[in-house]
Amino acid sequence: MPDVHEVPARQGKAVQMSSGDHIKLINTYGTQVIDMWAFNANDPHEMMSMHHTKSMLRRLMPRVGEPFYTYKRRPILTLFEDHSPGIHETLLPACDKYRYIADGVEGYHDSCGDNLTRALESINFPAPPVTPQPFQVWMNCPINSDGEIDYLPPASQPGDYTVLRAEMDCVIVLSACPYDLDNPNMPINGPNGEPKEVHYEVW
Amino acid sequence: MPDVHEVPARQGKAVQMSSGDHIKLINTYGTQVIDMWAFNANDPHEMMSMHHTKSMLRRLMPRVGEPFYTYKRRPILTLFEDHSPGIHETLLPACDKYRYIADGVEGYHDSCGDNLTRALESINFPAPPVTPQPFQVWMNCPINSDGEIDYLPPASQPGDYTVLRAEMDCVIVLSACPYDLDNPNMPINGPNGEPKEVHYEVW
Repeated sequence: MPDVHEVPARQGKAVQMSSGDHIKLINTYGTQVIDMWAFNANDPHEMMSMHHTKSMLRRLMPRVGEPFYTYKRRPILTLFEDHSPGIHETLLPACDKYRYIADGVEGYHDSCGDNLTRALESINFPAPPVTPQPFQVWMNCPINSDGEIDYLPPASQPGDYTVLRAEMDCVIVLSACPYDLDNPNMPINGPNGEPKEVHYEVW
Repeated sequence: MPDVHEVPARQGKAVQMSSGDHIKLINTYGTQVIDMWAFNANDPHEMMSMHHTKSMLRRLMPRVGEPFYTYKRRPILTLFEDHSPGIHETLLPACDKYRYIADGVEGYHDSCGDNLTRALESINFPAPPVTPQPFQVWMNCPINSDGEIDYLPPASQPGDYTVLRAEMDCVIVLSACPYDLDNPNMPINGPNGEPKEVHYEVW
């Protein structure tokens, strides 16, 4: 059995994967969103792109068996298995320091954007100057027919998991989203909003 | 009356605007998509972001009177007037050289991505290392309830126009999309697909 690793609540972690490796993301408490990025290990500019993925698939998100694409329109990760309701988010940015400034937070607040930068710095991989759009695992933001976007709690249950397979040598960053503002219109990490740790395995 | 400028078919152009300036984009033939980017004139990393715009508005696109936001979640352009059916595209990437490679084109093909780089170089403004997601004016790509994205011809008529107001000093790039492949599933620039010139005025 592969080792189980933790992404502590509010924090990020970089994971180096070889082509063909699998990563299992475990929503230990069922309520926690992970923001996820992937970069070609040999080219920091070739990152996973939500908009190129939509273009290549002509769909908002991959189905099981389909890949996410990079800015060079090459597969980087395949959605290999999904033991969750399959509700993930591909339209919106990571939370970043500007989100918390816009929301009136005084002083420092952890953010997925800062978690990305720190995680890449921890392995000496060049961090991009702006936070690229992530794949937001288990984040539940439906669009209605007028194009309005709602923010709902994750539909996943404790222990639900999602498996991705690397299609090239790549660096993945996982951020256990630290959004915890008391805002009934944004129950991103569940109705109580307490950021939790998540777990992952690699094989 | 302000001067009328042309963006030649298949080409791009950079336009430097001051806060409060207006730009009127004219779909001269009704069938031509413009890919558009905006950058803070004083910070090339602070560019217009389709995903931050969706987050700030909780909607896929601004309505008339609402802004597009940057990566720092500040307004950069306001959708000031829209004398077109108001159908524009905010989910997909620009066409880039990788699009044409993926489609089997041999040799060089103009692309909105290359037009962006050249237009910025022409005014000595630093071009980003990857093509940021553009606002695709008049591009008509509806999503269905299964999340599938269709490509339809623009719904605009000859002479339709869309006006944006600058909310900060900024550099705008317009690209008259050169997509012209004989692909019945992607009538981006109209059913006959012949790239055309478009026009604009600034005041």
